Amino acid sequence: MVNYNDIESAHNRISNFIHNTPILTCENINLESNAKLFFKCDNFQKTGSFKIRGATNTILQLSKKQLKNGVITTSSGNHGAAVAATAKKLGANVKVIMPNNTPKVKINNVQRYGGEIIFCEPNIKAREHTLNKMVKESGSTIVHPYNDEKVVAGQGTAAKELLEKVADLDIIITPVSGGGLLAGTSLLAKSINPNIKVYGAEPKNADDTYRSIKNKKIVPNKTTETIADGLRAQVGTITFPIIQKNVDGIILVSEEMIIQSMRTIWQRMKIIIEPSCSIALAAILINNEQFHNKRIGIILTGGNVDLDSLPW
Amino acid sequence: MVNYNDIESAHNRISNFIHNTPILTCENINLESNAKLFFKCDNFQKTGSFKIRGATNTILQLSKKQLKNGVITTSSGNHGAAVAATAKKLGANVKVIMPNNTPKVKINNVQRYGGEIIFCEPNIKAREHTLNKMVKESGSTIVHPYNDEKVVAGQGTAAKELLEKVADLDIIITPVSGGGLLAGTSLLAKSINPNIKVYGAEPKNADDTYRSIKNKKIVPNKTTETIADGLRAQVGTITFPIIQKNVDGIILVSEEMIIQSMRTIWQRMKIIIEPSCSIALAAILINNEQFHNKRIGIILTGGNVDLDSLPW
Repeated sequence: MVNYNDIESAHNRISNFIHNTPILTCENINLESNAKLFFKCDNFQKTGSFKIRGATNTILQLSKKQLKNGVITTSSGNHGAAVAATAKKLGANVKVIMPNNTPKVKINNVQRYGGEIIFCEPNIKAREHTLNKMVKESGSTIVHPYNDEKVVAGQGTAAKELLEKVADLDIIITPVSGGGLLAGTSLLAKSINPNIKVYGAEPKNADDTYRSIKNKKIVPNKTTETIADGLRAQVGTITFPIIQKNVDGIILVSEEMIIQSMRTIWQRMKIIIEPSCSIALAAILINNEQFHNKRIGIILTGGNVDLDSLPW
Repeated sequence: MVNYNDIESAHNRISNFIHNTPILTCENINLESNAKLFFKCDNFQKTGSFKIRGATNTILQLSKKQLKNGVITTSSGNHGAAVAATAKKLGANVKVIMPNNTPKVKINNVQRYGGEIIFCEPNIKAREHTLNKMVKESGSTIVHPYNDEKVVAGQGTAAKELLEKVADLDIIITPVSGGGLLAGTSLLAKSINPNIKVYGAEPKNADDTYRSIKNKKIVPNKTTETIADGLRAQVGTITFPIIQKNVDGIILVSEEMIIQSMRTIWQRMKIIIEPSCSIALAAILINNEQFHNKRIGIILTGGNVDLDSLPW
């Protein structure tokens, strides 16, 4: 299992490829939430999301031969852009397999960082088929968006930076989707201070991690119909045991509260964040008593939003 | 005329009432503009705009008696909220006279900081009449949004903070409307380093300062039909001579470029800013050659945007 040393090594490895992003506070939101919140702003991260942490930690451990044969991923979202950005810097070709109905904003984002896009039919079978075919043909290495120990270690570096600047947190909350960030965060936090509580915030409409913990085994999402487009993945075989062991609870959040908290952060903090991370603030606002007067770290995971289709 | 010492005194006076806001850079926008840009983020300022600098510098110099009789302003925008926030902290009543067709978002913003709103008919005559009547009745002191030396000195503190952190700027660009910020910025910059060029960015559709400089006297706006709602005021009798003496030029910007540059900042920097300040970036993007390779400071003046009516 990943441990503190892996996260520390990851941090040393990736530090020239990432920003040590700022931590913001907001008087107004503190008042509204009756808590003291510290927002770790990975919406300001290179490529606009925390995903570059895990992707870079993985890519930097590839051999010269692997880099020569290129890397490949099926994530059309933030992970795709992150893989493209780092792999291109190292001279590797990057292929990103995307369903042919992917929104233009995501296509642009991957292309901006030099990724080559391979379209496929918009279903899992076609995607897997295309992936296997491309891997066989090109010998490219797959960079998984979350279910990989190197990715988990990379994602844990956000919480490391947070705790290095704000040591005395009572709680850290992150969104949970495939579980890479929550796993890395919980491992890091508990290694530094076993008393820190770590919670995951998950959409009610894509609640596989919540139910998996309840059932003590991975159960699939019943729906993924959430505005939080970064939170539709399925918790992984590598991330789930770490979460099961280290995380103090999963808080389910309605679509309405995801949107409302996104708007609150935009309006009060004047920063652009995705609904996939406002969910962590929502988790606090709907559990006011539990979090009363606590010092809480929130990881704002990304800021890649389609400005032409906002949820209000 | 205001001088460096006035701005320094203003800074000492107001520093407990304001944020020393961060200065951000953006690799992508540097590439696009072929320049090195430093964004002074007063969109993160208390009350969401730089206006609290000048308003606070004025209010802190009122006598106890004046504070007891309250303060009053006719600005329904960022200045109104700024006056309310500081005056309420000092225990003074705050009246803000607004046209009865003012958008709800602006009404809410003033009310959030404790300002009392007095509605009037939406024309200058009604506004002046209401103002005179209220001043006579209550003995309240008017806090002008720009045409006041104390306001000019207060607004100059943003450039002071900027140059304290990034000393070797070639150029500073600010928006210009009533001229308080541009006057204060130019005074401050030229006092520190006479070689720094200072430009104002003004909407083509509200170009009174540009034409006033050309005509060597104040001439009125012909239209104020600009998306930049903070840039519809008329340059003042106190601000204009300072601008005339210190500013190296006014750059006119089309509505299209104001909107495009606003979107660029939102998308690339993940921060929320008003069209009234994206205009400064637009001024650079349309004058690429003039600003090639220069180190340019831009004052981002505010982030109070109605999220329900975005210009795209």
